[in-house]
Amino acid sequence: MAIKLYDTLVFTSTNALRVKACLAEKELDYEVVNLNTSNKEHKSPEFLSRSPFGQIPAFEDGDLKLFESRAITQYLAHAYPDNGTNLIIHDPKKMAIVGVWIEVESQKFDRSGSILAWELVYKPKFGLTTDDVVVEENEKKLEQVLDVYESRLSESKYLGGDCFTLADLHHLPVLKFLFGTKAKRLFDARPHVSTWAAEIQSRPAWVKAITA
Amino acid sequence: MAIKLYDTLVFTSTNALRVKACLAEKELDYEVVNLNTSNKEHKSPEFLSRSPFGQIPAFEDGDLKLFESRAITQYLAHAYPDNGTNLIIHDPKKMAIVGVWIEVESQKFDRSGSILAWELVYKPKFGLTTDDVVVEENEKKLEQVLDVYESRLSESKYLGGDCFTLADLHHLPVLKFLFGTKAKRLFDARPHVSTWAAEIQSRPAWVKAITA
Repeated sequence: MAIKLYDTLVFTSTNALRVKACLAEKELDYEVVNLNTSNKEHKSPEFLSRSPFGQIPAFEDGDLKLFESRAITQYLAHAYPDNGTNLIIHDPKKMAIVGVWIEVESQKFDRSGSILAWELVYKPKFGLTTDDVVVEENEKKLEQVLDVYESRLSESKYLGGDCFTLADLHHLPVLKFLFGTKAKRLFDARPHVSTWAAEIQSRPAWVKAITA
Repeated sequence: MAIKLYDTLVFTSTNALRVKACLAEKELDYEVVNLNTSNKEHKSPEFLSRSPFGQIPAFEDGDLKLFESRAITQYLAHAYPDNGTNLIIHDPKKMAIVGVWIEVESQKFDRSGSILAWELVYKPKFGLTTDDVVVEENEKKLEQVLDVYESRLSESKYLGGDCFTLADLHHLPVLKFLFGTKAKRLFDARPHVSTWAAEIQSRPAWVKAITA
């Protein structure tokens, strides 16, 4: 199989799951290579040659090796335009709006969202103690982001415009994890955010990605 | 003039300077609208309608309004393909490699680099006290990033491949500021990084952007 995704053996990373979401939307088959991070397999010279910061995921498509989940999803969208869901917009102005919200996810949503996922999901899973002060701080930051989303989603069905794009898809892993925690109330309190979050999480490709 | 860039009145932000670097490479004329941030002009309803997080820069091209500097540079690269320096690569595999290093700048280099610029450049400028512990922590993080860059740049002239791309350009503002501080030694200690940093900072478009 040409496409390989390097993930963690024990508990999938949000970043690997972002790539799985995109692979499912593009209806692409792939092989998962699971690394045992407790044995530091992600710090081996072989893995560092694929992902030089020793972070998961890494990705391979034939002779092409990539890391950074958001670069991998962009590659899949452009390299496989005719597979599954179209995730490319050619009009430069419409593409630019999608680009803005792709950046917002990366620069704003993910900063607090990932910390909350770590504190509320991964730490309990790994037997570590959640830091309530960090949770409170990051819930406040996430609320500020979600206030902007509520306004945006009151005028646009999806973040990037009328159709589902990578700007929405990139949120799915952190959304999924936070929806199993008390942080879900921050989404529920904002009607447009809540409708959007429910809709994108009910996409057949996403359901497939998380149950595969 | 069709293109407007919203910057700060007193001391340009690294994010606005990133857009200026791209405008100069694309040889585009533009008007700068300077906001008085000490009067909270960047938190006014008018500005929040352009940049909903109240952050600089905001950008306008005719009826298109954008924020997030890296989304704006992508727009300029795609909307003005025939102006100035070509910043687009059409081959999906080569584009994907550029995409990886665009993400690395955003997710890795900028995290520690921006904090160091704040501590070592902006704080002294604004009469605030530099936090030496924060500087030390972030110098260590930046060194880990630059070690990866040193390896990458030993096999590739630019981060994204054989030619200058947005992956390089996005670094310019933080590079410029850090080169005026003690953090410059971290770049000087790595020969390939040092050559690359000197080369991209000597580009005529960049010299024009910072002297305009």
